[in-house]
Amino acid sequence: MLTELASRPMSPNLALNQQVAERRANGEDILHLGFGESRLPAFEPLVDSLIAGARRNAYGPVQGDAAVRAAVAGYFTRRRLPTEPGQVMVAPGSKPLLMALNLVLPGDVVLARPAWNSYAPQAFLAGRHTIAVPIPAEAGGVPDPAALVRAIAAARRAGRDPRTVVLTLPDNPTGTLAPPALIRRICAIAEQEDLTVVSDEIYRDVLHDPATPFLSPAEVIPHRTVVTSGLSKSLALGGWRIGVARFPGDDTGRVLRDNVLSVASEVWSTLAAPMQEVATYAFAEPAVLRDHLAAGARLHGAVARAVHGILTAAGAACRPPTGGFYVYPDFEPLRPVLAAKGVTDSPSLARHLLDTSGLAVLAGHLLGDDPGALRFKAATSMLYGDTAAQQREALDAADPLTLPHVAAGLRRIDDGVRALVA
Amino acid sequence: MLTELASRPMSPNLALNQQVAERRANGEDILHLGFGESRLPAFEPLVDSLIAGARRNAYGPVQGDAAVRAAVAGYFTRRRLPTEPGQVMVAPGSKPLLMALNLVLPGDVVLARPAWNSYAPQAFLAGRHTIAVPIPAEAGGVPDPAALVRAIAAARRAGRDPRTVVLTLPDNPTGTLAPPALIRRICAIAEQEDLTVVSDEIYRDVLHDPATPFLSPAEVIPHRTVVTSGLSKSLALGGWRIGVARFPGDDTGRVLRDNVLSVASEVWSTLAAPMQEVATYAFAEPAVLRDHLAAGARLHGAVARAVHGILTAAGAACRPPTGGFYVYPDFEPLRPVLAAKGVTDSPSLARHLLDTSGLAVLAGHLLGDDPGALRFKAATSMLYGDTAAQQREALDAADPLTLPHVAAGLRRIDDGVRALVA
Repeated sequence: MLTELASRPMSPNLALNQQVAERRANGEDILHLGFGESRLPAFEPLVDSLIAGARRNAYGPVQGDAAVRAAVAGYFTRRRLPTEPGQVMVAPGSKPLLMALNLVLPGDVVLARPAWNSYAPQAFLAGRHTIAVPIPAEAGGVPDPAALVRAIAAARRAGRDPRTVVLTLPDNPTGTLAPPALIRRICAIAEQEDLTVVSDEIYRDVLHDPATPFLSPAEVIPHRTVVTSGLSKSLALGGWRIGVARFPGDDTGRVLRDNVLSVASEVWSTLAAPMQEVATYAFAEPAVLRDHLAAGARLHGAVARAVHGILTAAGAACRPPTGGFYVYPDFEPLRPVLAAKGVTDSPSLARHLLDTSGLAVLAGHLLGDDPGALRFKAATSMLYGDTAAQQREALDAADPLTLPHVAAGLRRIDDGVRALVA
Repeated sequence: MLTELASRPMSPNLALNQQVAERRANGEDILHLGFGESRLPAFEPLVDSLIAGARRNAYGPVQGDAAVRAAVAGYFTRRRLPTEPGQVMVAPGSKPLLMALNLVLPGDVVLARPAWNSYAPQAFLAGRHTIAVPIPAEAGGVPDPAALVRAIAAARRAGRDPRTVVLTLPDNPTGTLAPPALIRRICAIAEQEDLTVVSDEIYRDVLHDPATPFLSPAEVIPHRTVVTSGLSKSLALGGWRIGVARFPGDDTGRVLRDNVLSVASEVWSTLAAPMQEVATYAFAEPAVLRDHLAAGARLHGAVARAVHGILTAAGAACRPPTGGFYVYPDFEPLRPVLAAKGVTDSPSLARHLLDTSGLAVLAGHLLGDDPGALRFKAATSMLYGDTAAQQREALDAADPLTLPHVAAGLRRIDDGVRALVA
């Protein structure tokens, strides 16, 4: 029956997790920098709201109940995106929402290169063709504008039909944020080329410096932008699976929202009701939560900058991280040194770091990048500690870099990178 | 951009919910029998386990953690299906698991006619062709064996490739359970015709009489059967979104499981960690939970049988319900009487009941049935009451039919059906 069933690849971060678990089981000491998790304990008021919602066992509306949609609408409205509750929906994570968009949006989808590792497999599952466009020098998360225009023209000549572009603001994997001028250029191209923009803003509240200017494409071209977000990253709630989407407020936006709701009704029903209670609290952003968010962003920034410093000191090129908890170094300047060790591409680079220094990183080609490039993603949030107490200490510290467990992790990265380039 | 985006239909039960809400907002008094929800409060020990898991905020393994998989494996093993933890996975409801199976299984999918309203739309979203085969006289949830053989042959002659058959045991919408002899015939056909069986057993613990013989296809043809289940129905936890799947334990079963895990990793990550705590408790089936399940099954049976009695007394044909909380009457014997009122098919039948008696039911054609037939599904669980106190009273009552609020609902159905056939 299933004998001819072809094996599908596991999501690469998942596969790496498993590899790390196996090596650890064999007694190896691995520093796991390959998983995009904000390693912090659950904030107590969030736990309280989950407990407050613990008796809510009935199916609610697919879109989310009125209270949670009002809270999410308020969240976007406070970010210069005036939003009615009818424009938003909640889901068990932003992944299912992104998948539903893939299932209902027509045509091919343009992705930045590199990009978060689930965009392309989702498009593939939905039967959509992807077009990867390199990121510009200044920031990741968006295709280079000139390359985007060329890629669209080439795709159309080849009979393809590019109709969607996915942006990640701030970006995973590069930890950078496309500046407003760049967003405006992408938006102008989207308008001119008739593309729908899917703006993944799940790292928006993890900007290291709150003064960093953030421009959503939904401010520029609201009629053709869908924004997705969630609580997994900013509030370290990956294990609670809370995602949201914001649709355009016009008639075509309503059709798109209804089509996503149709998919939701068949594929996942709705976000669990107790989690809607959490989302209602969190998206209302009480002051205590805003303080907690700010403390997290400070920690993410301090540690990401420290790792960035280690990498550039060793000679790698690396965009300075300004959001999220990632760095994405490029060892191209050191290609001859690395080649002498048999490290000639991103698979051999990641393997070498794991084998010789016990550093697990996500190789760039697993994020759609050129396999010949010497690039990888490292999640710096894995340095906050293995226990809730260590993580809380890191969050509360005036200078987390001086904490022994954080300093030890940084030293270990430093040792591994120095050994690589020696 | 999106101007040419075609509208997708809403899931029909969702559309009916909305229609009911609008009519109620206009002051109409509607008895809503169109939604498959077990209307009972959350059982307190389940609430306790959710609270116990409320601090679990980290992403866990996609498949579910070791504890929950051990509990689910034990659940199946106690049901004559020896199961290793590696064979099972958890998810936010069984819907995403069924969707993932649609995305990874090859070929066309055979569905019973009628069938639960999400199977066909999921197959469509995954680009799969469906083949609907009528149910036999004795029970729903399975295609009639002789018709199944003919339909497969006809499909192959037409160039189609039937490769999967979905069974629902016990069935939604008919509230009946295919007996073991019928399951064995279907399994023999699956073996002979090389079909994978997806056995949706989410109503298994809602058999009204625990002595009813239940045979899972996974006992007969384990190497080609995937079982799905969940806690939404038996434990009235629709709003918590907890589903499970059990895969064959052999090599091809492992490939299928890994492919579903691959989809899960890209589309929904995992079941929320606090809900895994609940699932660990529930699938271990402590005595207090078994008693609660038994009380629920007794209530479901008593009310479903009462509604069945009303329908058959009025002259409708209706299979006696033995599982779940549904009845699926056929008013064909009364076609001339109904025709005189302009009721000639399932859309006009459902509309007439709603307009003249305020009874909201799900018309048979919305479940894939012949639109010309005079059939509908009624969810009898909606009679337990609108408040948690009423629902608890119904659950605890020696004879729930004598409770004023339950009796009032039954009387209203009786009045509506009598008026229909008068």
